[in-house]
Amino acid sequence: MLACQSKITGDVSVQIPEETLARKLKIAGMGQAVTDRLNRLVTDIDPMLQEIPLTLEHPTLDDSVSDLDRLNRGLKKQGCDVDRLNVGIKVMRQLAEVVRRDNWNITVSVVRRKCANEILEVRPGNGQHQSLGLAIDVGTTTIVVYLIDMSDGSVLAATAGHNRQADCGDDVINRIVCAEKDGVKKLSRMALATINDLIGEALDSVDAKREAVRNVVVSGNTTMAHLLLQIEPRYLRRDPYIPTVSDFPILKAGEIGLKANPMAAVFIMPGPASYVGGDIVSGILYTGFHREDPVTLFIEIGTNGEIVLGNKEWLMTAACSAGPAFEGGGIRWGMRAEEGAIEKVTIDPQTLVPDLSMVGDAPPRGICGSGMIDLIAELLKTGIVDRSGQFATELGNDQVRKQGDEWVYVLTVADETPVNEDIVFTASDLKNLIYSKGAVYAGFTTLLGEAGMDFSMVDRIIITGGFGQYLNIEKAVAIGLLPDMDRSKFAYMGNSSIVGAYMALLSTTYRQEARDFCDSMTYIDFFSNPRYMDEFTSALFLPHTDLNAFPSAVAAASWDIQSMEAVHRFNGLGFSA
Amino acid sequence: MLACQSKITGDVSVQIPEETLARKLKIAGMGQAVTDRLNRLVTDIDPMLQEIPLTLEHPTLDDSVSDLDRLNRGLKKQGCDVDRLNVGIKVMRQLAEVVRRDNWNITVSVVRRKCANEILEVRPGNGQHQSLGLAIDVGTTTIVVYLIDMSDGSVLAATAGHNRQADCGDDVINRIVCAEKDGVKKLSRMALATINDLIGEALDSVDAKREAVRNVVVSGNTTMAHLLLQIEPRYLRRDPYIPTVSDFPILKAGEIGLKANPMAAVFIMPGPASYVGGDIVSGILYTGFHREDPVTLFIEIGTNGEIVLGNKEWLMTAACSAGPAFEGGGIRWGMRAEEGAIEKVTIDPQTLVPDLSMVGDAPPRGICGSGMIDLIAELLKTGIVDRSGQFATELGNDQVRKQGDEWVYVLTVADETPVNEDIVFTASDLKNLIYSKGAVYAGFTTLLGEAGMDFSMVDRIIITGGFGQYLNIEKAVAIGLLPDMDRSKFAYMGNSSIVGAYMALLSTTYRQEARDFCDSMTYIDFFSNPRYMDEFTSALFLPHTDLNAFPSAVAAASWDIQSMEAVHRFNGLGFSA
Repeated sequence: MLACQSKITGDVSVQIPEETLARKLKIAGMGQAVTDRLNRLVTDIDPMLQEIPLTLEHPTLDDSVSDLDRLNRGLKKQGCDVDRLNVGIKVMRQLAEVVRRDNWNITVSVVRRKCANEILEVRPGNGQHQSLGLAIDVGTTTIVVYLIDMSDGSVLAATAGHNRQADCGDDVINRIVCAEKDGVKKLSRMALATINDLIGEALDSVDAKREAVRNVVVSGNTTMAHLLLQIEPRYLRRDPYIPTVSDFPILKAGEIGLKANPMAAVFIMPGPASYVGGDIVSGILYTGFHREDPVTLFIEIGTNGEIVLGNKEWLMTAACSAGPAFEGGGIRWGMRAEEGAIEKVTIDPQTLVPDLSMVGDAPPRGICGSGMIDLIAELLKTGIVDRSGQFATELGNDQVRKQGDEWVYVLTVADETPVNEDIVFTASDLKNLIYSKGAVYAGFTTLLGEAGMDFSMVDRIIITGGFGQYLNIEKAVAIGLLPDMDRSKFAYMGNSSIVGAYMALLSTTYRQEARDFCDSMTYIDFFSNPRYMDEFTSALFLPHTDLNAFPSAVAAASWDIQSMEAVHRFNGLGFSA
Repeated sequence: MLACQSKITGDVSVQIPEETLARKLKIAGMGQAVTDRLNRLVTDIDPMLQEIPLTLEHPTLDDSVSDLDRLNRGLKKQGCDVDRLNVGIKVMRQLAEVVRRDNWNITVSVVRRKCANEILEVRPGNGQHQSLGLAIDVGTTTIVVYLIDMSDGSVLAATAGHNRQADCGDDVINRIVCAEKDGVKKLSRMALATINDLIGEALDSVDAKREAVRNVVVSGNTTMAHLLLQIEPRYLRRDPYIPTVSDFPILKAGEIGLKANPMAAVFIMPGPASYVGGDIVSGILYTGFHREDPVTLFIEIGTNGEIVLGNKEWLMTAACSAGPAFEGGGIRWGMRAEEGAIEKVTIDPQTLVPDLSMVGDAPPRGICGSGMIDLIAELLKTGIVDRSGQFATELGNDQVRKQGDEWVYVLTVADETPVNEDIVFTASDLKNLIYSKGAVYAGFTTLLGEAGMDFSMVDRIIITGGFGQYLNIEKAVAIGLLPDMDRSKFAYMGNSSIVGAYMALLSTTYRQEARDFCDSMTYIDFFSNPRYMDEFTSALFLPHTDLNAFPSAVAAASWDIQSMEAVHRFNGLGFSA
């Protein structure tokens, strides 16, 4: 019975289920500690939009150059390359009054571009003005905003919220479909509504005005960047998957609708491909492995898995479609890592009863990605499922039961949860998860293969993004999502996209560095890659068909190495080699 | 009795005097002959806004760079410096659709700037588009528009009209005063109304659309440029006379309101000072003496006299306030050189009866500048006035009579003119003219003095502007407006401002040349120059106090060299040394 198809015949009382209410997002580790940590990342603050205070010489009959020439002369004395300096009609129209209002004391806002700078504004007076910056991470799901004091790089406020575009679907493909149907402006407005609310919240918290915001860096995947800027996204999802723009010119906040000074300079993180975007480039910038010798595998797992392999000499990148399962999509009781999400699971091998940990220590409302990985590892370990993903149907234990047509594992019963139903994990859920982890692992092996390498030649694995936050590496290896490597080689970097945006906000060097290495990255397309299809098929087993690649998982496992018969059985479910 | 102060008590019939009706302006020498003459001036057409037809390679999975990168790659193959190429949000928003609409055949509009180029538009298809240009001379009085075929430089149409700003006064000072009172926008709209009407007329005459106009050059004096662009003009007329902008960046037609494609690139001729503007720079560009050895004195006489002295090694410039007399202002029957203006006068030495020639061979309606110069030379020659400008009061001839308080010379009687009044030249008119010619001549001698030179070192005098068109050099020397030099050294160049604009429209080299020599010109201020005041006082005599400077005038004169008594008498009328 759908609410939207009900006919109302009298007074009704509407109940909104607890689990569908949006919750306040946690921003990890804000406050002075973050300021201290981030501050050390940039030693030399150098914004796009520079505020240059000047005292100009008064004009005389013997020195009667034009106001603009006088301004240029003043800028030149400050080391500004005035031969490459443009100025617009608006500034020229106001210039005569502005320079005279405070006796030839002025402050000039100059935006620094690659090939030519531009005077964006001239204001009377040359005292100190507050100058704020924004680092914005526009995720498909979550948007994070940092408000920065550009004078010292301190983080004045941080806010986060759900991207309102979610009304048009959970993943980028649905967003693009929606933009094709309703127009890209609608999607842009949705993202802007979230972003501008978050900016307003941040500004209010320190009692600042939008006019003070004069520098902005936006980091997001290629679809998010296209939608935000109202650039046609339809060709991103059509063979051969072409973005309209990879390397964006510096824009003005006013022309894209950001709540900042309309003159504010906006740098959009460049992205090398349709499915490897500015968020990944931003993350690399933060981790810095593109400046170092060790060969690094950099991964962000979400609806898409984005993978970068390389070091200071070379960078290769690719994306694989992990599907929505890790973010709770297509999973009966799946949810994001919000309050009440089951994030850790152990199963008693005797009673098969689970022991659960929830985000925020709240009563369970569903299960998030890291919880599912824990769960699958435990289901495999305890023999509830086998390596091909089949449920053991003859255990005679009430935790494993048939619900309708499907076998399920019961995580918690109705009276222990605010959702008032049993929370279960189904055979279909498991199949979806195996698809997802297989797609990601195949991405690693394919990219390594394209580089003529294997895991033994990888010095470091960096995991980034929200998904990694609660991830248990041991369990992820046990199910074959992550490779079975020395655990000391794994590092988790959190939301690296926002930190890279912060760094680019404060430093011309970092902005240029991002553009340079983005431009030099080799993109490997998996959609058309036969190696990838082979690797994917091999990875649709727990942990993998090739157990030699998972020695520690095998050693820790209670299961026996099964015959290839099971593999073939699994393939019979619909996969083909 | 002023009409504006009359109270209307019943039906009234308003008569607009014939002489105040605006008349269709003559455009000298249009047609194929002009095209041929102008065409030879530019051999290598090179517009600001280039139209580059491209066929891009189709994207594939192996070649999946962004549309913008693909576009840049195509432009690079055509020799475009893409590292210095900017692109705006509007182009990015349309790019994906545009490149695919005609199967990756496109035409790119790139504006070429000094330090960075910009993609202004991308259109589907790469066939031939008509590309038109406009050269616009915005004079204080008259505006001239040439419509040019950018493919071959031919002049398709030429139109001219009175600057509607004239409602706010005849000279630049009155226009600035009006802008201070009513706002600069009003003055801008007035000029634009005239300009856009003229553009429309030109386009209609060849059945072309404004969208086809993609390059524009505007040449005008500094006040006209400021007013047109809505740049504050008030400091132009206040000590120390500072323009807001001398060297304008390339603008877009849409941002200044010109009737052309909104993307059209607009070059405003640079001007070195508040009273030496882009029209003069444009004129120099045409005459080309800044590229040659001979020392040239370049002069344009109007309300202000603008003077340039120099050659390929150096250029000095200055402006003097000639007042409105040469253009008919402050002269009882003064008018511009329009139909019916007396432009030539000879006086029978016996009868003192004048023989008149009128512009367009029409019945006389007034007297224009060249007519006044003729007249004064004749009045002097026939002894009707003396060298100090006094009327001979005892001639007993009816041509010289007292009218009210003033002595006048009768040019024509009421029944021989459509204005139905005697057209006369008064003692006050004469005094005004002597002021004006003195101001101009003092300008020459002062500028030469500042350069450590005298007239003997000048190889050539170029006269330009509407005033020169009907000027009789011999008569101008006779009254001391022009120096008494070998007549073969004088040349008249007509409206050099529009021709320079035409040249700049077609050639990057000429645009750059104009900016370069404008920047290197030394401006000499006369307002504060004691030498100028001395020279001015000496020039308030017919032809001059120093008759040694006017040997041919003396030789041709019927008058005797008078004593300095007369000079002192003249000074007693209100001048002081």
